[in-house]
Amino acid sequence: MKGVFAAVLTPMRDDLAIDRAAFAQHCRRLLDAGCHGLGIFGTTGEANSLSVGERIEAWEALVAAGIEAELLLPGTGACALPDAVELSRAALALGTPGVLALPPFYYKGVSDDGLFRFFAELIERVGDDRLRLFLYHIPPQMIVGFSPELIGRLLDAYPGIVAGTKDSAGDAARIERLCAEFPQLAVFAGTEALLLDTLRWGGAGTISATVNVTANLAREVYDLHAAGEDAEAAQTRLTERRRYLERFPVIPALKAIVREQTGDALWANLRPPLDPLDAPAVRELLAGL
Amino acid sequence: MKGVFAAVLTPMRDDLAIDRAAFAQHCRRLLDAGCHGLGIFGTTGEANSLSVGERIEAWEALVAAGIEAELLLPGTGACALPDAVELSRAALALGTPGVLALPPFYYKGVSDDGLFRFFAELIERVGDDRLRLFLYHIPPQMIVGFSPELIGRLLDAYPGIVAGTKDSAGDAARIERLCAEFPQLAVFAGTEALLLDTLRWGGAGTISATVNVTANLAREVYDLHAAGEDAEAAQTRLTERRRYLERFPVIPALKAIVREQTGDALWANLRPPLDPLDAPAVRELLAGL
Repeated sequence: MKGVFAAVLTPMRDDLAIDRAAFAQHCRRLLDAGCHGLGIFGTTGEANSLSVGERIEAWEALVAAGIEAELLLPGTGACALPDAVELSRAALALGTPGVLALPPFYYKGVSDDGLFRFFAELIERVGDDRLRLFLYHIPPQMIVGFSPELIGRLLDAYPGIVAGTKDSAGDAARIERLCAEFPQLAVFAGTEALLLDTLRWGGAGTISATVNVTANLAREVYDLHAAGEDAEAAQTRLTERRRYLERFPVIPALKAIVREQTGDALWANLRPPLDPLDAPAVRELLAGL
Repeated sequence: MKGVFAAVLTPMRDDLAIDRAAFAQHCRRLLDAGCHGLGIFGTTGEANSLSVGERIEAWEALVAAGIEAELLLPGTGACALPDAVELSRAALALGTPGVLALPPFYYKGVSDDGLFRFFAELIERVGDDRLRLFLYHIPPQMIVGFSPELIGRLLDAYPGIVAGTKDSAGDAARIERLCAEFPQLAVFAGTEALLLDTLRWGGAGTISATVNVTANLAREVYDLHAAGEDAEAAQTRLTERRRYLERFPVIPALKAIVREQTGDALWANLRPPLDPLDAPAVRELLAGL
């Protein structure tokens, strides 16, 4: 698993149910725009605003609609061990090459021992050698995260199964350290602003919210680097786009852009507690693009 | 709803499934020790380490074991609206007099508008006039909380349905303010150290983790105050006991005490990411009692 992955937005109808047709169309657009793969139901996808059943049914519907399971990295994050087990098994049954796993995020200030036990129980209970865990480190939302020491312990205990990480700490030095310390780990930067750096450090690529609207630019950086050509200018354009988007609340801003691109009003819907952008903010956002 | 409520611990077998017999026995002991009611599946009960199905089945099993539904305040907290709806409906079907509702806690820095929309959707979707929501404010764990302004908006929009709050912010001035500003709201302090103060301010009582082991002391304070007698000395004893317990990680410490009281080793089990106390800490804890 490597390359440019969008952390895919989830389109919702006015009754807040997932719109499966719009979801599959958006996934196809992202693949056509250059994504190597798709993270389905992470923070950007409002995963934890969906029930376990909603998530599993939506994955199945995407595959039924022709989105290739081997291009999907489903988010299986849950506070409750049985939920994480159920989501992981469903993703395996679907044939996805890995799952994106959050730490249990209800309790704060928990120990590395407690987090290790959670993942050990998860891996043992899933009980399938095909499991590939990508550790989803996003301390700004979760407070709880993966220390490098914990990642090392998990890699030692479950080599092969602990396969990668999405690092959304916003800390370039940490990504560089993880790439150097754990060459067996596929390290994805949580922002495409660090894509070229991550690739140079030996990392796998990026899984990012804003790739919902920057996929072509991000792919250009990836391809230039892969070809041994100068990717600096392309990365600069990509970083500028990302920095602009970061000035807005990211999930509603991305939905507003996709609404504009598709003309489909359902893209304005978010599950509470997230709010849509108000009209003046949408105008400002679109004007700046 | 008023009085002394334990936020009940959840006993788990070695395979981490809920032990229903031990659960019902513990609930009965707490009622016999003086609890007016029982909060089932809040933070102390490791609620969010349990799946929705596990929670509902355990409530049903408690009632089947003879614990009166009208004494239960089930925790229905969930990040996902459909989960909160399902849990609330199940509690209503069981005949409980209210539910303890967390704010959706995945996203941080969310707006009061977004939280208002979450609870408005919850109330509309449950669609049952018997619903009584107790707002569970616990910012040390959740980061997200209920501002007094949000509580006021919810009370205005859903009078009768928004019925109370458990305030675990650890802020006496906030509890005093809520009692004064919202006399229609049953205000429960999240710690029995504030029980007498809360009752004097016109609040309803306490719902507290440590009531698992302080129920008789807390009930004494409540009864003395209700009889118009001097409850200061009893509150001082209760507060001292609470302060002592706070020196330890509370959930594992309470489980260690109940293990000692019952002689049943399953009380040492916690779901990850929570850790049991190690043996030296257990010895120190028990010696100090």
